[in-house]
Amino acid sequence: MPSRGTLSVAVVGTGKMGADHVRRIQRVISGARVTAVVDLDEERAEALAATMDGCRAYTEPVAAMAAPDVDAVLIASPGPAHEAALLEALDRDLPVLCEKPLTPDAASALRVLEAERRLGHRRIQVGFMRRYDAEYAELKRLLDGGELGRALMLHHRHRNPSMPPWFTNEMLINDSVVHEMDVTRWLLGQEITAVTVLKPAPSSYAPEGMDDPQLVLFETESGALVDVEIFGHCGNGYQVRAEAVCERGTVRIGDEGGPRVSADGRWGGRVTPDYLERFADAYDRQVQAWVDATRRGEVTGPSVWDGYAAAAVCEAGVSAQREGRRVEVEMIERPAFYA
Amino acid sequence: MPSRGTLSVAVVGTGKMGADHVRRIQRVISGARVTAVVDLDEERAEALAATMDGCRAYTEPVAAMAAPDVDAVLIASPGPAHEAALLEALDRDLPVLCEKPLTPDAASALRVLEAERRLGHRRIQVGFMRRYDAEYAELKRLLDGGELGRALMLHHRHRNPSMPPWFTNEMLINDSVVHEMDVTRWLLGQEITAVTVLKPAPSSYAPEGMDDPQLVLFETESGALVDVEIFGHCGNGYQVRAEAVCERGTVRIGDEGGPRVSADGRWGGRVTPDYLERFADAYDRQVQAWVDATRRGEVTGPSVWDGYAAAAVCEAGVSAQREGRRVEVEMIERPAFYA
Amino acid sequence: MPSRGTLSVAVVGTGKMGADHVRRIQRVISGARVTAVVDLDEERAEALAATMDGCRAYTEPVAAMAAPDVDAVLIASPGPAHEAALLEALDRDLPVLCEKPLTPDAASALRVLEAERRLGHRRIQVGFMRRYDAEYAELKRLLDGGELGRALMLHHRHRNPSMPPWFTNEMLINDSVVHEMDVTRWLLGQEITAVTVLKPAPSSYAPEGMDDPQLVLFETESGALVDVEIFGHCGNGYQVRAEAVCERGTVRIGDEGGPRVSADGRWGGRVTPDYLERFADAYDRQVQAWVDATRRGEVTGPSVWDGYAAAAVCEAGVSAQREGRRVEVEMIERPAFYA
Amino acid sequence: MPSRGTLSVAVVGTGKMGADHVRRIQRVISGARVTAVVDLDEERAEALAATMDGCRAYTEPVAAMAAPDVDAVLIASPGPAHEAALLEALDRDLPVLCEKPLTPDAASALRVLEAERRLGHRRIQVGFMRRYDAEYAELKRLLDGGELGRALMLHHRHRNPSMPPWFTNEMLINDSVVHEMDVTRWLLGQEITAVTVLKPAPSSYAPEGMDDPQLVLFETESGALVDVEIFGHCGNGYQVRAEAVCERGTVRIGDEGGPRVSADGRWGGRVTPDYLERFADAYDRQVQAWVDATRRGEVTGPSVWDGYAAAAVCEAGVSAQREGRRVEVEMIERPAFYA
Repeated sequence: MPSRGTLSVAVVGTGKMGADHVRRIQRVISGARVTAVVDLDEERAEALAATMDGCRAYTEPVAAMAAPDVDAVLIASPGPAHEAALLEALDRDLPVLCEKPLTPDAASALRVLEAERRLGHRRIQVGFMRRYDAEYAELKRLLDGGELGRALMLHHRHRNPSMPPWFTNEMLINDSVVHEMDVTRWLLGQEITAVTVLKPAPSSYAPEGMDDPQLVLFETESGALVDVEIFGHCGNGYQVRAEAVCERGTVRIGDEGGPRVSADGRWGGRVTPDYLERFADAYDRQVQAWVDATRRGEVTGPSVWDGYAAAAVCEAGVSAQREGRRVEVEMIERPAFYA
Repeated sequence: MPSRGTLSVAVVGTGKMGADHVRRIQRVISGARVTAVVDLDEERAEALAATMDGCRAYTEPVAAMAAPDVDAVLIASPGPAHEAALLEALDRDLPVLCEKPLTPDAASALRVLEAERRLGHRRIQVGFMRRYDAEYAELKRLLDGGELGRALMLHHRHRNPSMPPWFTNEMLINDSVVHEMDVTRWLLGQEITAVTVLKPAPSSYAPEGMDDPQLVLFETESGALVDVEIFGHCGNGYQVRAEAVCERGTVRIGDEGGPRVSADGRWGGRVTPDYLERFADAYDRQVQAWVDATRRGEVTGPSVWDGYAAAAVCEAGVSAQREGRRVEVEMIERPAFYA
Repeated sequence: MPSRGTLSVAVVGTGKMGADHVRRIQRVISGARVTAVVDLDEERAEALAATMDGCRAYTEPVAAMAAPDVDAVLIASPGPAHEAALLEALDRDLPVLCEKPLTPDAASALRVLEAERRLGHRRIQVGFMRRYDAEYAELKRLLDGGELGRALMLHHRHRNPSMPPWFTNEMLINDSVVHEMDVTRWLLGQEITAVTVLKPAPSSYAPEGMDDPQLVLFETESGALVDVEIFGHCGNGYQVRAEAVCERGTVRIGDEGGPRVSADGRWGGRVTPDYLERFADAYDRQVQAWVDATRRGEVTGPSVWDGYAAAAVCEAGVSAQREGRRVEVEMIERPAFYA
Repeated sequence: MPSRGTLSVAVVGTGKMGADHVRRIQRVISGARVTAVVDLDEERAEALAATMDGCRAYTEPVAAMAAPDVDAVLIASPGPAHEAALLEALDRDLPVLCEKPLTPDAASALRVLEAERRLGHRRIQVGFMRRYDAEYAELKRLLDGGELGRALMLHHRHRNPSMPPWFTNEMLINDSVVHEMDVTRWLLGQEITAVTVLKPAPSSYAPEGMDDPQLVLFETESGALVDVEIFGHCGNGYQVRAEAVCERGTVRIGDEGGPRVSADGRWGGRVTPDYLERFADAYDRQVQAWVDATRRGEVTGPSVWDGYAAAAVCEAGVSAQREGRRVEVEMIERPAFYA
């Protein structure tokens, strides 16, 4: 089936995550544009819409979804607002990307699930974005590949420098550990069957009444054991790590240096096979930077002077290579034009 | 100045790099589309154009640049064809991103330089994409920051698993080491003044007549000394590394684990400060994947079942946290619909 | 108090560990010699004693301890034999280094403890050798230093490639995890107050009836939480790691690369400050190798030819440095004598 | 041939290195003792001799070598004094360990070489101690093993935090780079045939008149190319690194984390195979510490209390393991005796 044209997206919720998704759709990725933004705060929605050609502001998701120029919905509003928006989108058979949590509790999630089943085809993707992280993807590939045998244990570390003051003990589970719940289920291809939470004496930097850090234990259908260190106020950077302990080796991600496998008496990682992989991001950023500057009417990046200088040094280099001696580079003086 | 609308780009040359740039503009980055592809091989150009709405094929750059729906040109044809295309683009005052080399020698590069100066404003960016690599950018930032003092030496390593059979000794300089020439000039903010090339006994895996590896030495205006190991047939992966030796410390990039600074009696790197930086790529890939699947009429990624399961595990987790005991997860059976 | 002369040691038990301690005392460390070896297997004891001047074999610890040329006792017999030997040594007021476990259970350990108290001064050191490992010592120093705040959690990993066939579930605790028990107590300066053992579905490489791996949890007096992954059949190398999670940072040991601190937004380690520290082991090994070879009547290691060649290259190097040019090394032909 | 008894060593020169070797022989290694110390500074020699039983002080090497209780000589005096002492030792057919340099120049080294040839058997070992470093030894083993093919290039880094004020340009070669000269010859099994020295603009922290850093290039018999960065005032710690670039892979030592091989599309290192290797140093240090303390009449290290506590925790652990529940540890109160 051929691709449709550019996808017209309504972004529901224009807080930190919503605004970031708007930026992403408009400035980073290809094939979509934002044609509607929705926020209870009308002014905020209007202000954001005004930065984009052909984008309208709404205060109600239902109104945005009814607009003729909306093909799909990205929900980034607070969790309690998700159920209504999701049901509305299913009613209209619109594709949805819904920030996690799907809904704040299992009962409401079940209502959404039933609605999608009644519709008869999947329309909703949940925003568990770790599945799109290169290292988690590599870990999944290694586990699925089977060379390391079955995964027996997972050790997760999830550390934040600090948490906002309104963060609660429950939110450590619902907003933070929920990511480890999802990647555990995804990595192992199994459901979690029981949970235990252990609380050491809290850090003196944890807010009054918060048990921080905690060690959360999961058991899974086939008996794998999973521990999650969740630390909300580690006072250092943001650290997300995982180690899979398998029958024939271990894999660690989130450390410095990419996935690290330990097996067969060796530890280490993969050497990037070629320049297109090694510099994939650089190529993408280069062309994006060129497009962005050009659209602003500007020229940035390496100039003709840089191209000329490289050519002059290459000529000296090839002479030096041929003649086996030191060769001085000959160049014109740098024109003020390229200063 | 507000952004113009979507940039319409003519891609000149549809070989490996040109085709990859087409993919990048159409599928990865935002704000541009390909409206023209140019190749002497008419069939190849037609075939590629046919995959994109509103894109025409040409055999001559001049014809594509004359088209009313072309705002900018990306040149990815062989080096000898660059000069004519660049001069044509300057004549038409079109913005250009030109794959390296700008032109194959200094004399022709100088003619392009003169033409741009006559035009009176910059229009050409050269494709030295390493400047857009995150690690090189961090190295530049550290050198410019000045805490490590002046850079005294740079050690570069540039290793390819192997080279195509038509690769020559001169191409090791012109096509490979040229990258180190540019990043050296850019990192140090200085011109290179002399070049020496040293040749150890070649590897037995190097083709007959090729001196591989080589050690290329640069001297710069202010007396910095730069060595480049260029190894075309290292038989391992692709490895690009650089180490700056400064007055008060050293920085290494391209190894496992991101930029590594050694100074003040410590070695190490930066901890990612927050989740938006740590998972920036995952967020981008997630939304791109959703847009791409939606445009194909598909649904992929985490499902409502995943959202429901996470909610159920969270509920068990919060109970376990509150009650200080192991809590079993309660879930409905997985519907076949989500199998 | 000035040092006594060379210490005369009786080694009780001449199995794997006992024989290794004999080698260590005779060949590696200074200030002691083995004057008695004890083993129920008389032939084994005799054979070992015969390799050392002035060493006698015994079948009973009591007889060895009564010998006039025994100043101290190293106990490396099986655990059940320890109590009797320890009580005998205390009776004779002899210094003891006792391989772990002190005794196989708490009741017998308490009897030894009471005997030492009655004696009125300490005589017994227990062989928890991890306290002498450079990385554990550095971790202890960092925790005691206090810059990272209080330790909230410890994560231990203890993996063996495989276990002997007679190893039992209980031995995973008593012979393996006992090391983590001791280092936890030592690192935190606290007693352990409770233990929990969790068992994932075992590896298919674990012997019938053994739960392998296991996750052992300790709670400590001040509420620190400690987890130990014990894995007896990991199928890879021997891996012992620890990570301390403190209020202001984390420290990891046992990974590649020495203690790694993560704090203040940076991760990394210490650069060795000088050559005496960097090459301390090389200096020790060099002189030991020279002494050993000389005692065997041999000469090994770098020769006069190596010293001459270095001098010749140095002369070329200093000329090259002074004159700014390539200087060839002048040497005589290598005499057959140094071939 | 059976080992002789304890080797009686005369140490010539009691400066920094000489005193350290005395400490090493007396306190660290086995099988030797210092029976003579020699220094022009009579008081210093006397003071050092007085710390050791059966050790005499001398001001002339010849007198010490004539003493009946001297079996071997360790020369750690300044380089210009080496030739006379070496010739004297050869005259007396005494085994020698001579600190580098053998002698200060090639002509005098040649005289020593001729004297040893006339003697007809080797007696002198030169103190190039890097050959005894575990990582250099592993690198040598890997190069000799041949799996990586022939070594094409070596990159050495040799950085000191700073140099004493009397250090000269020539000493950078003769006292520092001389180590890279020796390990290059040893690692490659070839002589060095030519040397070039390149000097970037010096660091502003280098003393007036010193070119620091420098890049020293060696060529070898079979055409390998070697570069050495020597940096005397790097302002950071002491860093000695080497990278061998071979036909089928590279090996790096001196970085964090032990020898690192990059080959076959993977980078990484070896997992320690067992606990005797992993904790070899800890075992050695433990027994040395016990011997040292015992000779001082002291008891240090883990106590009976530690042994008892471990036994008590083990009992709780085994119960917890058997019963699948949290088990509290039962212990007597810690006696003041073990406080």
